Amino acid sequence: MAKRKTKSSPAGRVPQRAPATAGDDTDITALGLPAAPLSPEMAAYFAKCEDKLGFVPNVLKAYAFDPAKLGAFVAMYNDLMLAPSGLSKLEREMIAVAVSSHNRCYYCLVAHGAAVRQLSGDPPLGELMAMNYRAARLSKRERAMLDFAVKLTAEPWQIEEEDRERLRRAGFSARDIWDIAAVAAFFNMSNRLASATDMRPNSVYHAQAR
Amino acid sequence: MAKRKTKSSPAGRVPQRAPATAGDDTDITALGLPAAPLSPEMAAYFAKCEDKLGFVPNVLKAYAFDPAKLGAFVAMYNDLMLAPSGLSKLEREMIAVAVSSHNRCYYCLVAHGAAVRQLSGDPPLGELMAMNYRAARLSKRERAMLDFAVKLTAEPWQIEEEDRERLRRAGFSARDIWDIAAVAAFFNMSNRLASATDMRPNSVYHAQAR
Amino acid sequence: MAKRKTKSSPAGRVPQRAPATAGDDTDITALGLPAAPLSPEMAAYFAKCEDKLGFVPNVLKAYAFDPAKLGAFVAMYNDLMLAPSGLSKLEREMIAVAVSSHNRCYYCLVAHGAAVRQLSGDPPLGELMAMNYRAARLSKRERAMLDFAVKLTAEPWQIEEEDRERLRRAGFSARDIWDIAAVAAFFNMSNRLASATDMRPNSVYHAQAR
Amino acid sequence: MAKRKTKSSPAGRVPQRAPATAGDDTDITALGLPAAPLSPEMAAYFAKCEDKLGFVPNVLKAYAFDPAKLGAFVAMYNDLMLAPSGLSKLEREMIAVAVSSHNRCYYCLVAHGAAVRQLSGDPPLGELMAMNYRAARLSKRERAMLDFAVKLTAEPWQIEEEDRERLRRAGFSARDIWDIAAVAAFFNMSNRLASATDMRPNSVYHAQAR
Amino acid sequence: MAKRKTKSSPAGRVPQRAPATAGDDTDITALGLPAAPLSPEMAAYFAKCEDKLGFVPNVLKAYAFDPAKLGAFVAMYNDLMLAPSGLSKLEREMIAVAVSSHNRCYYCLVAHGAAVRQLSGDPPLGELMAMNYRAARLSKRERAMLDFAVKLTAEPWQIEEEDRERLRRAGFSARDIWDIAAVAAFFNMSNRLASATDMRPNSVYHAQAR
Amino acid sequence: MAKRKTKSSPAGRVPQRAPATAGDDTDITALGLPAAPLSPEMAAYFAKCEDKLGFVPNVLKAYAFDPAKLGAFVAMYNDLMLAPSGLSKLEREMIAVAVSSHNRCYYCLVAHGAAVRQLSGDPPLGELMAMNYRAARLSKRERAMLDFAVKLTAEPWQIEEEDRERLRRAGFSARDIWDIAAVAAFFNMSNRLASATDMRPNSVYHAQAR
Repeated sequence: MAKRKTKSSPAGRVPQRAPATAGDDTDITALGLPAAPLSPEMAAYFAKCEDKLGFVPNVLKAYAFDPAKLGAFVAMYNDLMLAPSGLSKLEREMIAVAVSSHNRCYYCLVAHGAAVRQLSGDPPLGELMAMNYRAARLSKRERAMLDFAVKLTAEPWQIEEEDRERLRRAGFSARDIWDIAAVAAFFNMSNRLASATDMRPNSVYHAQAR
Repeated sequence: MAKRKTKSSPAGRVPQRAPATAGDDTDITALGLPAAPLSPEMAAYFAKCEDKLGFVPNVLKAYAFDPAKLGAFVAMYNDLMLAPSGLSKLEREMIAVAVSSHNRCYYCLVAHGAAVRQLSGDPPLGELMAMNYRAARLSKRERAMLDFAVKLTAEPWQIEEEDRERLRRAGFSARDIWDIAAVAAFFNMSNRLASATDMRPNSVYHAQAR
Repeated sequence: MAKRKTKSSPAGRVPQRAPATAGDDTDITALGLPAAPLSPEMAAYFAKCEDKLGFVPNVLKAYAFDPAKLGAFVAMYNDLMLAPSGLSKLEREMIAVAVSSHNRCYYCLVAHGAAVRQLSGDPPLGELMAMNYRAARLSKRERAMLDFAVKLTAEPWQIEEEDRERLRRAGFSARDIWDIAAVAAFFNMSNRLASATDMRPNSVYHAQAR
Repeated sequence: MAKRKTKSSPAGRVPQRAPATAGDDTDITALGLPAAPLSPEMAAYFAKCEDKLGFVPNVLKAYAFDPAKLGAFVAMYNDLMLAPSGLSKLEREMIAVAVSSHNRCYYCLVAHGAAVRQLSGDPPLGELMAMNYRAARLSKRERAMLDFAVKLTAEPWQIEEEDRERLRRAGFSARDIWDIAAVAAFFNMSNRLASATDMRPNSVYHAQAR
Repeated sequence: MAKRKTKSSPAGRVPQRAPATAGDDTDITALGLPAAPLSPEMAAYFAKCEDKLGFVPNVLKAYAFDPAKLGAFVAMYNDLMLAPSGLSKLEREMIAVAVSSHNRCYYCLVAHGAAVRQLSGDPPLGELMAMNYRAARLSKRERAMLDFAVKLTAEPWQIEEEDRERLRRAGFSARDIWDIAAVAAFFNMSNRLASATDMRPNSVYHAQAR
Repeated sequence: MAKRKTKSSPAGRVPQRAPATAGDDTDITALGLPAAPLSPEMAAYFAKCEDKLGFVPNVLKAYAFDPAKLGAFVAMYNDLMLAPSGLSKLEREMIAVAVSSHNRCYYCLVAHGAAVRQLSGDPPLGELMAMNYRAARLSKRERAMLDFAVKLTAEPWQIEEEDRERLRRAGFSARDIWDIAAVAAFFNMSNRLASATDMRPNSVYHAQAR
């Protein structure tokens, strides 16, 4: 409140700190595994990323030390997040961010927060998924979906028929329930691989779709 | 990854959702307490906010139903966050956001995340404080300060002499320790008042200093 | 059970331990900040405490290193705990103790436990608030109030409209909800400042109103 | 702070509340199991309690519906708390209260808090064990003993050789370690039986040894 | 999946590891307390165990350093687990294992898991109690009983009349509620004594009733 | 103790309960998604499972409603668990079970517990991984590996350089650290998909390699 332009701090800045993203685009993980040669298929995929996104997401570079692991990750990721589903792409990204918020995963919050901003055209929605999805103005469908995903993240041993029933009452089919569970489960995997290796997101994400 | 411009979703947007910030600037809390007339001192303070920030922070409007409460809050807030201290203003805001991240407080994360972006001139630093301060590149001083603040937030009953000793070893004086504790404690109060009343941040914060 | 007068322990006492309150009245915090001169207003307030209570509460002495901080604390405290409200003074003190019990704060449990004993004229009520408010025989109003205050303390991110609705059903107005939230929030601040500094309660509290 | 004798609340009391201990001496548990005839041995034991304590502890009356259960409980209790041990009776009672504090057990905190006050001759020590043993001024031996007991209470699956080693370094023998563990374990049982049945402590405990 | 007979691992075994149960039958606890001479009654009891079970359970050997403690433990155990009750012996063992699963107690999971397998004639039931009782196909009565026992284990301070009411609605009498509570409470004691001392189960249990 | 052949319970069994595994081999998930036709590659893989294991693991049948998802899962699983790695197959299975124990996942504990029994030739090792890996006699390497995997499971946001450093000190390479993280992360995904859908393990696992 009236706080950022006081006389005692004329510039209102502390320019001497190193930027918080220093190294994020070059030292992608704490493991320093050298990249292996890309298979032709993966080389084409990386080129497509460059073409469409303007960059290759760091998670792909992190996996690039081993072609088999990279291929398996990309296949599963693309199926889950891009293939036809009763869940929209935005809904899948909302799950990704709400799960990553519970797990406080820097990489996934940055990368998928940007996706929610972009897909929704509503930047604060990305913030809300990263901060506390319960504070967002959501439809009943969205809320039921995120409640299930976050409970599954926090206490998977407590999920029971009643939880699935709640999703059914919100209009989700058996296949939709699988997809909600699979996306939430996938980010519980990715969050942990990212945290275990201190994976850093491409710094370009931070300013996207603000 | 190459995901936001596929043929099946040409615009890459879901424009039909209501914006996530709908109502945030008008329905400031869930309690709907009518504003009381401002004292001359508070009227001048609100005018100063308008002048310097371009708006009156919603937390002030939320307290405006009762002049005594508003005055006490402003006095404590300004002393803690703006008065001279061994902690820089940025450091105090970093504590504010890291504490609010633990408590997942929408209002404080938005308002003070913007302050960290602005004071640091390094927008991703604000994101990192809101997501997981442990993933940020921090000085030892900053890390010790935030470790204490977040432990005090999560498990105040576990704070002991050893924790204070760790701050002293990082160069903090007795007075600095009070200030770290006081700022962390204050946001444990504010986070809870905001969550209890569903306080909404001014929507202007979202795009500030990105 | 028949245990405290056995032959093997004739006196039933271990007099050689130093008293648990040794130093509580002199070494008020672990920080050792020297008191600043009191403003005339605060000097009068301290005198009033001496006159009415017989002592100055240690929390005031702890804040006395900085007149601005002391003044802001006293103003907020007196407004919250003593100003007119839909909550009785006893109810506000019950919230203070139940919150402090969750946070296991020695200072606040001792000082405000004494207040509950005194205001209620029912010493065990103070014990119950400090031990487990759920075990107390409470009115529905009291129980709803404490359930909200303790949930807000433990998991502020989970508070939602349903929680406020439960308070409304128990007869609380919007203003009452603010006051419940504000008192609970305030003690989440005070508990943490006390724990961070190892603040010690005046030893006179222990025997008050037993 | 000058709060309990203001004009607006002349008497400073709310006499109309039912006492918090109403029924505690008559409705000992929520189960209402009728007492069975006492065996001669137990009748003598109850008489001894009346003689030495002035009352029969309610936990004994709670068990009195079944002579075999009563006998087994008394035998185990008396061995643990009264038989010769490397731990003093006060130390055993300190463990009892610190464990009961973690479990927030009304019955055991009241009954064994009184025992700590009585055996130590230092009433605030009883309060500190019930509130937060970490805030008490303790010897290294006492602290090590309580740290083990409370960790065993909170996270028994995490106890390992290193924890036992810490007790050995504080001077405890193998037999002492057993006794610390056994007392802590016993109160984890008693706390749960008391909570499960809403067992109420004799109201006489509240004012004992203050 | 097709994984255990691949060429690169012809035998599918790693025989060089020491068996996980090495020492379990000889080094029964980490304390190494020497056994005291057995009373005639206990000697007869040990002989009866040898006769009927083929071995003396290690928990008895662990207690054998002190005849009074051994006797008290056996008396309480046999009353709880073998005396007439509204709960079947299998139900009592199911509680024992579900509680021990929450507390992750190696000794009790092994010994009482074997009992559930044996008493039920359905080995996977023992596994399910040890892994996650919520995943088992249970009657409403069994489920209510285990929900109460595990809540009492995890959060005893949260047990209230509503929890007892749920047991009554599932058909349990006041005496049955005592027995459920007493068995759950007892294993909260035993789990902790076993974990505190690193008590090892007789290795013969592992293969029993598979 | 001497408990399973008493006169009052001659048979020592309760044969009338439905087996706990009733339906596990037919109703594989709670979603009832109909299987899609297998691709030739997957048909061959299922046949290979039948040939080598004697059955098709239920997780494969659960995924069989969608060929793309089945293929992606099998590719990732086989790479992680069967491809060359600095971790032995047994070590990878030990991680799988310890992670699944934290998450209390019935499916994975049964299926991968069997794998640990089989690969180690030491059945109790499988039990220990499922119950509490801390109670097992492990090498320093195994212990460090499991400590990292379980911390990553429980609190991924707390993993930092110090945790990776601990693995390095135990002899693990950067690539090994990736593999530990990837296996732990994968089972955090699988556990959640299994819990979300109530996936049931093939009943044949229960008796394998006992």
